[in-house]
Amino acid sequence: MIFVFTGDGKGKTTAAIGQAIRVLGHGRKAALVQFIKSEKWQSGEERSLKKFGKFFLLYKGGKGFVGIMGDSLPRLAHLAAARRTFTFAKKIINSGKFGIVILDEINVALALKLIGIKEVVALLRRVPEETDVICTGRAAPKELIKIAGLVTECREIKHPYQKGFPANKRREY
Amino acid sequence: MIFVFTGDGKGKTTAAIGQAIRVLGHGRKAALVQFIKSEKWQSGEERSLKKFGKFFLLYKGGKGFVGIMGDSLPRLAHLAAARRTFTFAKKIINSGKFGIVILDEINVALALKLIGIKEVVALLRRVPEETDVICTGRAAPKELIKIAGLVTECREIKHPYQKGFPANKRREY
Repeated sequence: MIFVFTGDGKGKTTAAIGQAIRVLGHGRKAALVQFIKSEKWQSGEERSLKKFGKFFLLYKGGKGFVGIMGDSLPRLAHLAAARRTFTFAKKIINSGKFGIVILDEINVALALKLIGIKEVVALLRRVPEETDVICTGRAAPKELIKIAGLVTECREIKHPYQKGFPANKRREY
Repeated sequence: MIFVFTGDGKGKTTAAIGQAIRVLGHGRKAALVQFIKSEKWQSGEERSLKKFGKFFLLYKGGKGFVGIMGDSLPRLAHLAAARRTFTFAKKIINSGKFGIVILDEINVALALKLIGIKEVVALLRRVPEETDVICTGRAAPKELIKIAGLVTECREIKHPYQKGFPANKRREY
């Protein structure tokens, strides 16, 4: 089944990781495939998930933020990275060996046209029965919502930055 | 800081657990305090979180669904269970030893008046600086939203039951 966690609120990737934790507890393999986050990204969840050894696979395929936050990479570099990430995702989904595959921030990669919606839909229409795929990121395209079995919109009601709380390592990554 | 994950969509408890996984990765302790789920509840996430040994504390204080789904317990039993669970939550929050404490389904316990909003607000106004508390459950009361730093509403856009998918062990618990 396809899950989509979208919307502007916090909790999309963490909900996907919580779902992976559940699936891992049932003895199935989980993969986190990141379309935007890069090798430089070191997160608390990454350290935690290492505990699951070969049951948890992490692929940090992104090159970081695209066109914002001081990104100086040519678009071509982001395109090539997204292509490699998508190829990898396709391989592990089609292997049928994973209970869950998280395509983290794929909605953002789609919005930036780093990958095409048609190829994503073609892949997701043929996901093996025993694999769940979670697509995260704000602004999920309607084509994705159409083929998903479960869609949750995480709406931001209140965010700490609104209240002047500083970014915090433990909370944010 | 106080987090609230509310709304009718899937992902509230899983997002809280994903956040706990992040905090655990930073070497801090995490606790999951369940206001509705009972000892009978065995979930995949529970088996996964056992990997963290003494860094992860689980308290299943509930007595199961209240007044629905074949619940035959007297209300007094649910009230006593909620009272014990709240007392336990207070103790571990005030200890200052936890990086994160999840009060799972506390919004539901509040809506059912198993605990009072005033005592909850009094507790949450004095959470130690180094502890984050996540309150989950649909229909969070406005008093809770007022004191929270981060509030996400998980809105159900599409749910598998709508489409006739059967409940599935790996996905649902």
